[in-house]
Amino acid sequence: MSSTRAWHLVSRPAGVPRASDFELRDSGLPELQEGMVRIRNRWLSVDPYMRSRMNDVKSYVPSFQLGEPMEGGAVGTVIESRSPLFAEGDTVLHMAGWREEAVLTADKANKLPNLGVPDEQWLGNLGLTGGTAYFGLLRVAEAKEGDTVFVSAAAGAVGSAVVQIAKARGMTVIGSAGGEEKCAWVRELGADQVIDYKSGPLVKALQAAAPKGIDVYFDNVGGDHLDAAFASARGNARFAICGMIDNYNGGEPPAFRYIMRIIAARIMLKGFIYTDFMGEIGDFYRDMGGWVASGKVKSRETVRDGLEAMPQAFLDLFRGANIGKMLVKL
Amino acid sequence: MSSTRAWHLVSRPAGVPRASDFELRDSGLPELQEGMVRIRNRWLSVDPYMRSRMNDVKSYVPSFQLGEPMEGGAVGTVIESRSPLFAEGDTVLHMAGWREEAVLTADKANKLPNLGVPDEQWLGNLGLTGGTAYFGLLRVAEAKEGDTVFVSAAAGAVGSAVVQIAKARGMTVIGSAGGEEKCAWVRELGADQVIDYKSGPLVKALQAAAPKGIDVYFDNVGGDHLDAAFASARGNARFAICGMIDNYNGGEPPAFRYIMRIIAARIMLKGFIYTDFMGEIGDFYRDMGGWVASGKVKSRETVRDGLEAMPQAFLDLFRGANIGKMLVKL
Repeated sequence: MSSTRAWHLVSRPAGVPRASDFELRDSGLPELQEGMVRIRNRWLSVDPYMRSRMNDVKSYVPSFQLGEPMEGGAVGTVIESRSPLFAEGDTVLHMAGWREEAVLTADKANKLPNLGVPDEQWLGNLGLTGGTAYFGLLRVAEAKEGDTVFVSAAAGAVGSAVVQIAKARGMTVIGSAGGEEKCAWVRELGADQVIDYKSGPLVKALQAAAPKGIDVYFDNVGGDHLDAAFASARGNARFAICGMIDNYNGGEPPAFRYIMRIIAARIMLKGFIYTDFMGEIGDFYRDMGGWVASGKVKSRETVRDGLEAMPQAFLDLFRGANIGKMLVKL
Repeated sequence: MSSTRAWHLVSRPAGVPRASDFELRDSGLPELQEGMVRIRNRWLSVDPYMRSRMNDVKSYVPSFQLGEPMEGGAVGTVIESRSPLFAEGDTVLHMAGWREEAVLTADKANKLPNLGVPDEQWLGNLGLTGGTAYFGLLRVAEAKEGDTVFVSAAAGAVGSAVVQIAKARGMTVIGSAGGEEKCAWVRELGADQVIDYKSGPLVKALQAAAPKGIDVYFDNVGGDHLDAAFASARGNARFAICGMIDNYNGGEPPAFRYIMRIIAARIMLKGFIYTDFMGEIGDFYRDMGGWVASGKVKSRETVRDGLEAMPQAFLDLFRGANIGKMLVKL
């Protein structure tokens, strides 16, 4: 089988994406010129934010182009190098995912240090999702010791990191997840209270879990979770708005019965993305590296096998099929 | 006629308040003891925030008590004093509005300096509404020279102050109001663009008025105005959430088609009230006093006559009957 196959975007979904929006094509690769490396991918990252890149509208990252290969985080091995910066066998992190091989200029690949952690961690707790959790919780929401933190999608890649960072920093944590298996894992991660959002109205469940209210909300889903956070916010609560997966695929615009509490509780909301904090990435590597090495922050992955599995793994994110980070292993 | 009459709250409205929720009663006044003053009210403030005090729920100010007199800002004249701090004839600002006379301990009344401005300004541009505009725009939203500012209810007491402060500080201003008369006044105040929200869809109107987007939104109404602001927000836009009059009386929870732009545009929203900034009131008096004295900030009032007019003046706020500050003159 050719190793130059890549998933291409062949149609833009109007609502929920379908398998037919993607096509696996062998489109060849550029010639390896001076200053370039050839990479064999081994791990492909599967992330909800990719949905917004499928639309033809200005968002926080550029749209995928119709008829062109998809992109996404990946970890691979350098198999051929014409750059003095890389040697054959180097492990690299880059954005040319959704494919088996990539030919990139050296500036597009990041050589990974050997920290003795599994390579796929660089796509999770030591990468995009861990960094999103770290900066959102500690910088955007300015969460501190003693705060009560509510996090939605707490069994997901970002949410599970939020739970653990918050516990490592002495906070009380309420995590929400869907179904018993996910809730059990969130408990195992150290959450003080766990809400199964499939088992009843969220507003009441959150009020029961945090009778004195919440200081911080880390939002991964929007919709009813955000409304429940409005209802339970204490004075000067801070909401880090990381994702709204409930709304990525369109549908009815979300309604908020408790949004007016923004005024009474002086709530602050702020949207952000990981790359806003690249200037502080050293803090993240120092703290998160330590927590991962000491086992304070654990990870769990939902792994699918082979390039063919990629679109379905992506579609499965929107029905909550993953626990922890969703990955495809090549 | 007795001068000890006061409007009492006799029932809590479920949705839109009605005249029958209020009753004008002569309930007498406490005896004037040592350290107290007797005040004859001359101006009563009529403000939308009073609606939230009619509910029996915890909000940013305590609820009005059933069967007790209503409260609100008022300017009056000291007609009898047993406090060394006040002399007969002093003009004072206090919270015992909705009545003709009040007997208060000296700490509940504030003697007004003689700045040569009409007394009623202390309930408007030099008081609650002007201060709300000042702190919301300059502190909460951190609006600065060169910013494009969108303000809803721009013909109201707070909104008209926001328009003028923003112009005094070198910003571009888009104001929204309902109907030609109000829009004409907002234009007269110096707004660069005026949107009549009754004449068509807000999202398109705001995009046309601010083709490059907005940096700041000063929210007095919530609902569709807030959604249009989400749609038009530029990167790192700041929204000062002051009021949501569209939702004060209940009804369907507001839905937001563009709320997800919080993430892409890194929007910051923050709720606040005037009294959060009492520590910086000196800045407000210095700046606003100067602008009012120089005519840079003008005021306009909608004045109703006599204590009997008070409940209807209040109810009329919710159908937009006022231009500028709503007041009752005794």
